[in-house]
Amino acid sequence: MDVEIINCFLDSTINVLTTMAMIDAKPGKPQIKMESAAKGDVTGMIGIVGEGVKGSLAISFEEKTILHVVSQMFGEPITELDDSVNDAVGEITNIVTGGAKKTLSEKGYKFQMAIPTTIAGKQHVISHKSTGPIIIVPFNTEAGKFFIEICFEI
Amino acid sequence: MDVEIINCFLDSTINVLTTMAMIDAKPGKPQIKMESAAKGDVTGMIGIVGEGVKGSLAISFEEKTILHVVSQMFGEPITELDDSVNDAVGEITNIVTGGAKKTLSEKGYKFQMAIPTTIAGKQHVISHKSTGPIIIVPFNTEAGKFFIEICFEI
Repeated sequence: MDVEIINCFLDSTINVLTTMAMIDAKPGKPQIKMESAAKGDVTGMIGIVGEGVKGSLAISFEEKTILHVVSQMFGEPITELDDSVNDAVGEITNIVTGGAKKTLSEKGYKFQMAIPTTIAGKQHVISHKSTGPIIIVPFNTEAGKFFIEICFEI
Repeated sequence: MDVEIINCFLDSTINVLTTMAMIDAKPGKPQIKMESAAKGDVTGMIGIVGEGVKGSLAISFEEKTILHVVSQMFGEPITELDDSVNDAVGEITNIVTGGAKKTLSEKGYKFQMAIPTTIAGKQHVISHKSTGPIIIVPFNTEAGKFFIEICFEI
């Protein structure tokens, strides 16, 4: 997978968290995911389909991280994972992917997005059934970690 | 959402479980999902995008149900949720959606599929961020229940 594609998603993630939640998210080193290892408490997912390209994006948050993100977004303390949190994670996933879509479109990669879905449950594990590599990028914030997983078949 | 679309997914599910696992899956009454209520232990998900249509499909299994399904598929007893189970759920999701895609294509609904993803984790909850209705269909098998959630925006 072209590093340019990954960077578009990372840039979009950083922008969205800065804009929507005033949170400074620092990406770590992108890695190829070898096993279903990363565990999240809330994950937003979206499918991607274009001309000669298909993929999926997952943004997986630890509980303490997403509670801080939504508290910042809503301007009030959110202390438990409820439907409003799930909804916010779907929205973040949609906007991150939409931002990356716009940038990638200008670079000649055109795709459409499916409907974002949120999964909530303690320490769930995501696996992508793909013939292509799965890139996982850890992010650090002041409140905790989250992960982005990008899986593209081109 | 046209009942014809839902039925294509239900028929495909029944066919796939009969063919791959010799399991008789009996669908219950389709319902409009009002809240993030259904809890599964392993879920396969896939995004769908076509001309003027986008959506997502989730197949969510209780642990005892999917262990029975994969035991039947593999021809040997599978007693725990491991990567081979996750892989099988991704494959089932892909084949169910592929089957429905074929039938729907003949009826004039054309779409492409993104990459299937599997979520594993005790009692996780799925929510779809969609402006359209989310249809949930419970299935009974001799080993336990599973659910299909279909979300389409046309």
